[in-house]
Amino acid sequence: MAYTYEFARAALTVDIVVFGLDEQALQVMLIERDLPPFEGEWALPGGFVRVDEPLDEAARRELSEETGLNQIYLEQLYTFGSVERDPRERVVTVAYYALVNLEGHHVQASTDARNAAWFDLNDLPKLAFDHEQILETAYERLRGKVRYQPIGFELLPERFTLRQLQHLYEVILDRELDKRNFRKKVLAMGILKETSEIEKDVAHRAARLYRFDKRAYDRLTKKGFHFEI
Amino acid sequence: MAYTYEFARAALTVDIVVFGLDEQALQVMLIERDLPPFEGEWALPGGFVRVDEPLDEAARRELSEETGLNQIYLEQLYTFGSVERDPRERVVTVAYYALVNLEGHHVQASTDARNAAWFDLNDLPKLAFDHEQILETAYERLRGKVRYQPIGFELLPERFTLRQLQHLYEVILDRELDKRNFRKKVLAMGILKETSEIEKDVAHRAARLYRFDKRAYDRLTKKGFHFEI
Repeated sequence: MAYTYEFARAALTVDIVVFGLDEQALQVMLIERDLPPFEGEWALPGGFVRVDEPLDEAARRELSEETGLNQIYLEQLYTFGSVERDPRERVVTVAYYALVNLEGHHVQASTDARNAAWFDLNDLPKLAFDHEQILETAYERLRGKVRYQPIGFELLPERFTLRQLQHLYEVILDRELDKRNFRKKVLAMGILKETSEIEKDVAHRAARLYRFDKRAYDRLTKKGFHFEI
Repeated sequence: MAYTYEFARAALTVDIVVFGLDEQALQVMLIERDLPPFEGEWALPGGFVRVDEPLDEAARRELSEETGLNQIYLEQLYTFGSVERDPRERVVTVAYYALVNLEGHHVQASTDARNAAWFDLNDLPKLAFDHEQILETAYERLRGKVRYQPIGFELLPERFTLRQLQHLYEVILDRELDKRNFRKKVLAMGILKETSEIEKDVAHRAARLYRFDKRAYDRLTKKGFHFEI
């Protein structure tokens, strides 16, 4: 079967930037391409949008097919449409992004991908297409986001120490933060509740555990703020 | 001539939300459609992306063709791709938006549009397609933007009063602001320079004229802040 149109049409794809957090660094999920162009090279997961498929559904499907990652909340990032971005023909891509905790997000390469793996953001291979630009745009968006919205609810355990929260910010921002200053500012946000518990089984002095006040957290997410860090 | 593909392809369009500021209210530029579907109804300016044309170029071209508006700095807003958003077939649209001063932006309807006009945001006709949703998304983005970035440089005369600046915020936010509180906060931004001049030819008491400190303004634009208003 073939489809005929009066005017030439661009192909439409989705590409997905999934950032993964571990204890040490920010990671990004890449796949090794199993088909030309850029066969054998690393790229963001993604693929063609079906003509009867919503964009966000296409993004979730491609991510699942190529990496085994499921049930991840994706946000639309930006649409990249340079005329020369794909050597085959005009391909416009709608990019999505997400930030997840690495624990519990196991990876399995599947269709169209030889391999799928997490890469340290500071140690990336060369990427196919304009995927370096897409990744850079996503990372800028992520860093911007942590200045305007609270983060951590989906990323930390239910009860956590201020040190864990600080570490989350440090990994995303890729720099060390002043402990005293961080604590003062993060407590001033008004989204943390002190619990009566302390850490267990740690080598250092056990620290107080906190949890998020979900209502205050949601209110601040909606209202926005500026976290000067 | 016809173009044939192995898989069915969505058509790709751009739509543009141009907000215009006058003394009283926020306006939006609409065109009256001259072709089906929704012939004779009002819609955002926009149209099909050519296969060899970058997305932002398509947006500028369509805006110019349909409304006569030129040299407007457009930012990409969001890509809308619901399967049923166009009654003809699958059409994915990349939306752009801009905020301009109405003075000096004269309008002339052209190809594909019977008519082009500014509409008060509080008094809109029914819009074609999903353009109400696109407009709502753009307005939310605009309101969000004034909380995180300074505004006014492209919108006010070189020298202006604090009353003019406050009025700009009031028109965008569509509500009155407390004068004393506004002045305190806007001066604290550190982006205004007092001049030695005062207003001329006004019925009320002549007020001090200010100008923007462009370096501080650009720094704050880049750094972001939270303007709690």
